Amino acid sequence: MSGRHTEQSTGAAEAAPTLIDCDIHQKWRDPEEVVAYLPDQYKDRGVQSPSILYDNVAEFSRRDAVPDDGGPAGSSIEKMKEHHFDEFGVDYAVLTGNSYLNLTALPNRDYAAELAVANNKWAIDNWLAEGGPFVGSLLAAPQKPERMAEMIRELGDHPRVVQVVMPMASQLPYGHEYYWPMYEAAEEMGLPIAMHPYTEGHGVTRPPTGAGHPNTYFEWHTLLGTYAMGQLVSLVAEGVLAKFPDLSFVVIEGGLSWVPHFMWRMDKDWKALRAQVPYLQKPPSEYVRDQVRFTTQPIEEPDDPEHLLQILKMMHAEETVMFASDYPHWDTDSPLYALPPMPEEMEQAVMAGNAQELYGLPNDPTSLPTN
Amino acid sequence: MSGRHTEQSTGAAEAAPTLIDCDIHQKWRDPEEVVAYLPDQYKDRGVQSPSILYDNVAEFSRRDAVPDDGGPAGSSIEKMKEHHFDEFGVDYAVLTGNSYLNLTALPNRDYAAELAVANNKWAIDNWLAEGGPFVGSLLAAPQKPERMAEMIRELGDHPRVVQVVMPMASQLPYGHEYYWPMYEAAEEMGLPIAMHPYTEGHGVTRPPTGAGHPNTYFEWHTLLGTYAMGQLVSLVAEGVLAKFPDLSFVVIEGGLSWVPHFMWRMDKDWKALRAQVPYLQKPPSEYVRDQVRFTTQPIEEPDDPEHLLQILKMMHAEETVMFASDYPHWDTDSPLYALPPMPEEMEQAVMAGNAQELYGLPNDPTSLPTN
Repeated sequence: MSGRHTEQSTGAAEAAPTLIDCDIHQKWRDPEEVVAYLPDQYKDRGVQSPSILYDNVAEFSRRDAVPDDGGPAGSSIEKMKEHHFDEFGVDYAVLTGNSYLNLTALPNRDYAAELAVANNKWAIDNWLAEGGPFVGSLLAAPQKPERMAEMIRELGDHPRVVQVVMPMASQLPYGHEYYWPMYEAAEEMGLPIAMHPYTEGHGVTRPPTGAGHPNTYFEWHTLLGTYAMGQLVSLVAEGVLAKFPDLSFVVIEGGLSWVPHFMWRMDKDWKALRAQVPYLQKPPSEYVRDQVRFTTQPIEEPDDPEHLLQILKMMHAEETVMFASDYPHWDTDSPLYALPPMPEEMEQAVMAGNAQELYGLPNDPTSLPTN
Repeated sequence: MSGRHTEQSTGAAEAAPTLIDCDIHQKWRDPEEVVAYLPDQYKDRGVQSPSILYDNVAEFSRRDAVPDDGGPAGSSIEKMKEHHFDEFGVDYAVLTGNSYLNLTALPNRDYAAELAVANNKWAIDNWLAEGGPFVGSLLAAPQKPERMAEMIRELGDHPRVVQVVMPMASQLPYGHEYYWPMYEAAEEMGLPIAMHPYTEGHGVTRPPTGAGHPNTYFEWHTLLGTYAMGQLVSLVAEGVLAKFPDLSFVVIEGGLSWVPHFMWRMDKDWKALRAQVPYLQKPPSEYVRDQVRFTTQPIEEPDDPEHLLQILKMMHAEETVMFASDYPHWDTDSPLYALPPMPEEMEQAVMAGNAQELYGLPNDPTSLPTN
């Protein structure tokens, strides 16, 4: 598993990064900034961005992340740098976008796809152009896979674009061959595909659970890991990981303590039911270890931190786990306190090494071109 | 947590049971046996029992469990005794029914409820009347809660009825107050309520995952634990466990390695979001430890058995876990080989003690009346 920058010099003269934050949400100051990039036919529609209906008890973003001038949290590069990057020594910040993660909740596929393209052009011009620690994601509306494939090929060679992000919520599970043209483009461009939860159970997406729609945000948020399991088992079972061996997936914001259970369950069922998935050439958990990465936030917090370390070992965290804070959202995890004490090699891999390898990042962030 | 028989003598002169199997599926030889118990208006309809559409690679029941006379697996008491109970020394067999676990997939609530009642009368007359190791469950069609409450009060005082079983699949999550009259009756009668998967994503139930309908049985079966999570978080968050402190729930056939993750997630989210669930008076995981039990099958099988023991310790298996084989289904777990070596106290609790306490079973099964 390696990103497309690995063939570049990794800047051996520079020390390797020690902290790569894999989930930073940037936001526009004013939606009109993005509307400017929309095709004319959608300009009047503007940015249709329904927020989730499962209401938090307070804001979804941290009040202390609001810029001094009062813009939305995450909208000021200066505030972000001072408040988070400088505070913790973040070498790379992987931008994952914001409310556009509801793209699959939108009934109109064409509009959703053009909104993705407009957002990505805006992010490239306004954030990746800044350089510094920023690398970014192309948000995708996967219900329009051919258009997304075109976009990935058009925008995906920007030196600071390091992945595609699609919403965790969908109408069809992501293993479905309907989506494969998009996967083909991402593999071709050397870009991993991340999945991020946001609007499960909203708009035209499915109810979040087999039991239907939960009642509270507390329930909805507790179940984040199950949304990831529903998509991952599909990607494995339908043969996406086998068909696209150079394509990786990243699960963002699902926590991680469910992963050992998930890998064991797949392997056990595969032993008995492999006739249903004959294109799998090795146990499902090995596809996961080779081609799937999990970001840490929102990390579980057992009473005994040793339990979390046991989980990290069970899931081979030294290969599979990447730190993420989710800054500036309400439940930001601290790079200092979120994770338990780990063996040195595991800690280095989780805090920076796995992400550096996956995204193919040079040691020196400033060596990456900004356009 | 204690069953309603605990006030009886537990037969101190007898040795305590060493193996209680909490998921044994009995079946009718001929559906007409059950039709005889249906109200006249439904007799012509017969037993409408759609099987699941996610197809296994072979039969759902073990070929070696078929009785000598060729009836369905699970339909012969003699075969079951010889093949499973005598082989492993099963002291108690908790019968959980069979294809009726699709009751919530049926669009007609009234018919589903009467089918549940008819099945339960049949089971009492044909299986519980046999005595021996058999104790049983009242299957419920929870979409008709008042009728189920009536049934639970009518049939629930049979000395060998030890729980209510409802399908894991539903139209509304089980925390919903619509279901509460049934819970009130079960608590009143001292009967735990079990949930068992079968028709998630079929008939009028919801798609099994937030991603929609998976493609294969391999996927459907891998995700069993997520169906349980969707229901359990609802039971906790909507206050069912808090409102009915003497009511217990049992998760059957969901495996268990997801449970530590689930408890940690709820507790973490509860710390931040408890304003949404103000009726919870303690951390959610404590409600689970006090009022929820998990059966073992289909047990996860990590390469390193020590990992499974770590999971059992994380979830306080000495309080929360009960052995189940799922006999005579295709993936029956062996009482001898399914679980890793455990400390003696934990092993005793898992293999028998926790179930004996939950169901209030006397040491001597033959001391329980048969009607």
